Amino acid sequence: MSSIGITAPEGFRAAATTAGIKPSGQSDLALVVNDGPSLAAAAVFTRNKIVAAPVKYTRTTVADGQLQAVIYNSGNANACNGLKGDEDAATMAADVADALGISNMDVAVCSTGLIGDLLPMDLVSKGIASLPRSLGDHGSEAAQAILTTDTVSKETVVRHESFTVGGMAKGVGMMAPSLATMLALLTTDADVTPAMLDEALRKASAATFNTLDIDGSTSTNDTVIAMASAASGYRPTQDELNEAIATACAELADQLQADAEGVTKRVRVTVTGTASDEQALEAARVLARDNLFKAAMFGSDPNWGRVLAAVGMADAAMEPEHISVWFNDQPVCIDSTGPPGAREVDLSGADIDVRVDLGTGGSGEAFVRTTDLSHAYVEINSAYSS
Amino acid sequence: MSSIGITAPEGFRAAATTAGIKPSGQSDLALVVNDGPSLAAAAVFTRNKIVAAPVKYTRTTVADGQLQAVIYNSGNANACNGLKGDEDAATMAADVADALGISNMDVAVCSTGLIGDLLPMDLVSKGIASLPRSLGDHGSEAAQAILTTDTVSKETVVRHESFTVGGMAKGVGMMAPSLATMLALLTTDADVTPAMLDEALRKASAATFNTLDIDGSTSTNDTVIAMASAASGYRPTQDELNEAIATACAELADQLQADAEGVTKRVRVTVTGTASDEQALEAARVLARDNLFKAAMFGSDPNWGRVLAAVGMADAAMEPEHISVWFNDQPVCIDSTGPPGAREVDLSGADIDVRVDLGTGGSGEAFVRTTDLSHAYVEINSAYSS
Repeated sequence: MSSIGITAPEGFRAAATTAGIKPSGQSDLALVVNDGPSLAAAAVFTRNKIVAAPVKYTRTTVADGQLQAVIYNSGNANACNGLKGDEDAATMAADVADALGISNMDVAVCSTGLIGDLLPMDLVSKGIASLPRSLGDHGSEAAQAILTTDTVSKETVVRHESFTVGGMAKGVGMMAPSLATMLALLTTDADVTPAMLDEALRKASAATFNTLDIDGSTSTNDTVIAMASAASGYRPTQDELNEAIATACAELADQLQADAEGVTKRVRVTVTGTASDEQALEAARVLARDNLFKAAMFGSDPNWGRVLAAVGMADAAMEPEHISVWFNDQPVCIDSTGPPGAREVDLSGADIDVRVDLGTGGSGEAFVRTTDLSHAYVEINSAYSS
Repeated sequence: MSSIGITAPEGFRAAATTAGIKPSGQSDLALVVNDGPSLAAAAVFTRNKIVAAPVKYTRTTVADGQLQAVIYNSGNANACNGLKGDEDAATMAADVADALGISNMDVAVCSTGLIGDLLPMDLVSKGIASLPRSLGDHGSEAAQAILTTDTVSKETVVRHESFTVGGMAKGVGMMAPSLATMLALLTTDADVTPAMLDEALRKASAATFNTLDIDGSTSTNDTVIAMASAASGYRPTQDELNEAIATACAELADQLQADAEGVTKRVRVTVTGTASDEQALEAARVLARDNLFKAAMFGSDPNWGRVLAAVGMADAAMEPEHISVWFNDQPVCIDSTGPPGAREVDLSGADIDVRVDLGTGGSGEAFVRTTDLSHAYVEINSAYSS
């Protein structure tokens, strides 16, 4: 088996091909099959009210906690295509079911690309028909075929003593703005129930993909799927499964953050000292999405005033005169005022740690990953106070 | 009297000087005096929980509906400076009161510039002491002295048959990101009560400055003040006053939008077809702040899919399958699907009108001004589908 990726766990095969959806001529179609014995599956989807046809289809087929195959296409999101788009998503699943001799209700469909163009279904169906014969240990090829504006593929493997978790992902919110979709697949040979997989996936997504917040953009197609084959014969505890899935998701989230377009800084924002974790997350998101703050990070500018101006707009409990801020663990603002040397903190490194305490003494805490705002748009904004 | 600006109405004098706060050596201190007979005043302030010292001070002095003078400094926001900052704001007002022989409780203080640095109070006090002798028809000099990264000063005058409204403004949210403060002053020689002025200012601000939404940034210093001298002797109706103040604020808002840093497009967003005006405003703001949408506008790219992806995240009632979008009055999305030719709409002009109907049949409607997202950060994002 390959050392990393979705075909690292026993019981999974993958195949990829170039159907001709992408003008670039790069691979754009991937099939992943779970050979069992278990077909347990779970999924989390975009929070956007406007969802693409493949999301609508996959929600119905994963509802029973069982999937045998996932078909992926890149280069076209099949979103906002009306009833024809819904038909095309169902046709993709039917083509896979026919080619593999399985039920179309055990097939998930994921698409990523431009919104509002119909899929070239003749090319897609031809491509799907060609995939089964090349199924094998080709997780890396699948990870390549789902990419859009990503510059590198994202794969991971987490090896527990008695079972393995593999994963692949692409995109993420504003990191691939033209194609905002984030897709991820976790595979494991552990013997678990769909309910266990669902709990592990929801907890891991909330702590990793959902805290990878570039500016709040959420696409019409975001889909994270987990499949378990039970091929290892090992039945992990819920905690063992949660930990392995969470570790795999965290590694994929780090890779997605690192591949953000135009990014020069990886920024980790922690907020404490407010009434609840929810309020802390709200404040962390407001800061992580603030273009002024992100521009300052690009300029390695310890402009802590922008941090206060940003969190001051958050719907979170705070003591306006008692907010403190640390850049890379150095205090730059104590009780809402800058101590001596606050502007001399070195932020020249690629990783910046920002911690904000809202001063209420509350136990609320949250963590968000974000990036800087780079390029000329930022040149105007990043040089001022430095 | 000067043809435009805050000294156009009878009863107002202004003066400006260079105190030496700005490294650039440009004028950075302005004084505006209302010679009455009425000293009626009203003000609206930033919604940020973290407010600068001058905002705290001015809130108390304008509370009685009366102001005789406003002192402005640019180059330093006097925000997040602790008790010393509060003392400095009070000292600025006391210096003005001494120089003019008035009460420090009839003085408003407005500051704009970098957060977190103490004011050079020796220079500020010297500058204030020098201002009274040069008070006169110098509204344009005052409009210059309050600028920060603005490239041009913003002034306006609205002439009613029997009274006049003058105005000046600077900055605005993300339009001057290093110095996000928006300051505005409206003057009128109408004979009105503070309550009338307050109603007119709140309604006008809500419809103009508060809908000039670049990305939701709101500074620690935003302050809009209105003063009425009654020097014309004319008592307008509330409607007459509301209309004149609203017209002046709209003209200033247009000038602020046009002077946004790096902006190549002026984008007007209208949202209809949801449950309430509040929900429509929420959806319009979400769209106006979406970097993907704004990047597409920069690229003159009629990428309507980004409009749907953005509004789909808004906390507003919508029919996901029945959303329609118009660019410059041409339909690019009907019932959440693109009609033929949707991608051929010409958005090459500097003004782009975007209308979104959320499809519920509700009467909620809102309007927001925004801009494109320009420069290299956007080059990645603006070319994809065009």
